[in-house]
Amino acid sequence: MHFSAPLQLRSGASLADYTLVYETYGTLNADRSNAVLVCHALNASHHVAGMYAGEGGAKNVGWWDNMVGPGKPVDTDRFFVIGVNNLGSCFGSTGPMHINAATGKPYGAAFPVVTVEDWVNAQARLADALGIEQFAAVMGGSLGGMQAMAWSIMYPQRIRHSVVIAATPKLSAQNIAFNDVARQAILTDPDYHGGDYYAHGVVPKNGLRVARMVGHITYLSNADMAEKFGRELRNGDYQFGYGIDFEIESYLRYQGEKFSEYFDANTYLLITKALDYFDPARAFNGNLTKALANTRAGFLLVSFSTDWRFAPACSREIVQALVNNKRKVTYAEIDAPHGHDAFLLEDRRYVNVVRSYYNNIWNEINVAAPEEKVQA
Amino acid sequence: MHFSAPLQLRSGASLADYTLVYETYGTLNADRSNAVLVCHALNASHHVAGMYAGEGGAKNVGWWDNMVGPGKPVDTDRFFVIGVNNLGSCFGSTGPMHINAATGKPYGAAFPVVTVEDWVNAQARLADALGIEQFAAVMGGSLGGMQAMAWSIMYPQRIRHSVVIAATPKLSAQNIAFNDVARQAILTDPDYHGGDYYAHGVVPKNGLRVARMVGHITYLSNADMAEKFGRELRNGDYQFGYGIDFEIESYLRYQGEKFSEYFDANTYLLITKALDYFDPARAFNGNLTKALANTRAGFLLVSFSTDWRFAPACSREIVQALVNNKRKVTYAEIDAPHGHDAFLLEDRRYVNVVRSYYNNIWNEINVAAPEEKVQA
Repeated sequence: MHFSAPLQLRSGASLADYTLVYETYGTLNADRSNAVLVCHALNASHHVAGMYAGEGGAKNVGWWDNMVGPGKPVDTDRFFVIGVNNLGSCFGSTGPMHINAATGKPYGAAFPVVTVEDWVNAQARLADALGIEQFAAVMGGSLGGMQAMAWSIMYPQRIRHSVVIAATPKLSAQNIAFNDVARQAILTDPDYHGGDYYAHGVVPKNGLRVARMVGHITYLSNADMAEKFGRELRNGDYQFGYGIDFEIESYLRYQGEKFSEYFDANTYLLITKALDYFDPARAFNGNLTKALANTRAGFLLVSFSTDWRFAPACSREIVQALVNNKRKVTYAEIDAPHGHDAFLLEDRRYVNVVRSYYNNIWNEINVAAPEEKVQA
Repeated sequence: MHFSAPLQLRSGASLADYTLVYETYGTLNADRSNAVLVCHALNASHHVAGMYAGEGGAKNVGWWDNMVGPGKPVDTDRFFVIGVNNLGSCFGSTGPMHINAATGKPYGAAFPVVTVEDWVNAQARLADALGIEQFAAVMGGSLGGMQAMAWSIMYPQRIRHSVVIAATPKLSAQNIAFNDVARQAILTDPDYHGGDYYAHGVVPKNGLRVARMVGHITYLSNADMAEKFGRELRNGDYQFGYGIDFEIESYLRYQGEKFSEYFDANTYLLITKALDYFDPARAFNGNLTKALANTRAGFLLVSFSTDWRFAPACSREIVQALVNNKRKVTYAEIDAPHGHDAFLLEDRRYVNVVRSYYNNIWNEINVAAPEEKVQA
């Protein structure tokens, strides 16, 4: 969907016009009360669930296909689910690789730094265009969870529920440090060319590869890595060189390589900045309770015991601030071995919590009278 | 000291001849029983303590000056302390930047991959040359602790005590993963030139910078980073660019920059490999108790509560294996906020443990009859 009205950004810059790519699943009901917005994290897209006709293979499966679909926890037989690709992405919505109408060249480094709040504003315009006054829920994991949280603050009347999974109210110094290592790897790659590498026919692949490797380590738990890879050797013995000795090296280099082939470096820079900048309590002298005071939604928060990127304590901080505000909040801390990545994986208890929560939303929107809904 | 006999390495390669740079503090006593070998970690050197005459500034202070010196825990009024720079280093001992006599050019990538065990063998030859049959103690932190441990296994008769601080019996998959990110940053830097960058008049500075940044994160604790830097901004507000926003970015980039100006990239590669390869239990099907069965030394192990690089559990694994062998072992787990770096910092309880342990060593070598010492 193309938007021709300028979008004012938090940085002070604005985008003259832009396109958002989105996908929908299920059917919007007559009173438009069953819409669910799914927000994506760092490297995902609008392709949340299902497969494209005629395209096979695991790569074609939506990134949250285990969560969203007919009969699944977010049941598309009941809900009208929207997946939207965020501004600045490299998967279709307007981003650094697109032509800047003002110059006739790709934006490159000139694409403005966008924030979680900017994304939410852009998403709200999409909701306007689709005639959705209020979402039954806005949901997401990690950076997607931050968007669900920002929705509850910025548009309190427009969401009944906020589903915030494996998220944090703000990045820690360590989180920012890892992001900055990733950015420095990209920015100092000679193929980065100040962000205008498109014109040079190259991409800062080495930098992006290293960026992804370091990021990937933070998505996995130490214990999970130990169990999956341990000190297993690729070729039975030490090679005494700088090729691959350990299976974990093989895995990480492969992940980095794969990522550097499909992801855009400018997008990576942008998105890590959006993560670093997210901090709704900042406008309230660090008081998260005050930042959440105007929320009206019900909340589901989920965290995972071995997530050391956004540890359970981060989710608990949000829960406490919501409780301080006497909000209705459900919190599940799932004992799962897979670190931060757990939010994308199958886990019976996790999936059941989300399923139950959406069952309740379903019951709620079907018993509530229309006038109640508008006030909710 | 120059050694002209070839050194056989674990990789199968050998060094035809080599030089080890070392420093000594204090005086070797008449029966040569008061010698202490201090082994260094990743980026340190033979310059353990004190300052060079005529050179001022904090940079000139030895890396363990708070631990070693007159009246200090390792009291150089009592002990004859030796600091030795390891093979492959860039601080004086033979390494990749030195001329390979076989080619007349710097070794570069041709410098053989060396292991902790190779270092210990080279150190043993230095001890031979200095006429030291048995060390009162071999000690080190982190990678230095691994050397102290390897000494107890490889030369059980030649050390009375092994002081192993903030170490591990083997790196975890996560540890190896971080090392491989660092290596990949260096290896893919165009200025690396396959390791022969000396001839090109460049150094892979960007890669080394990123390598150091990621390493540095793992030396600090999450809590300590949060307390020291938190989300503090350099210029009071978000800059909406890729310069410095947060103080933690400023700190890390500075650390990376500084390091890349004095450290050699080939040495960094070598040393991370020595870390990855250390695994004395490997020759015993992973059984650390068996690996330590022939040790004769007394042991002091120290770990730090917030060290997530080599967590207390790693030290406890060594302690348990020593206890299984009925070895005399003292273990202190210090509740300290500074992560892995704590082993280099002042901490009253830590320093007191080391002081007490060395007091006991001092009493031991002064009451023991010479014939007992040889058997010890």
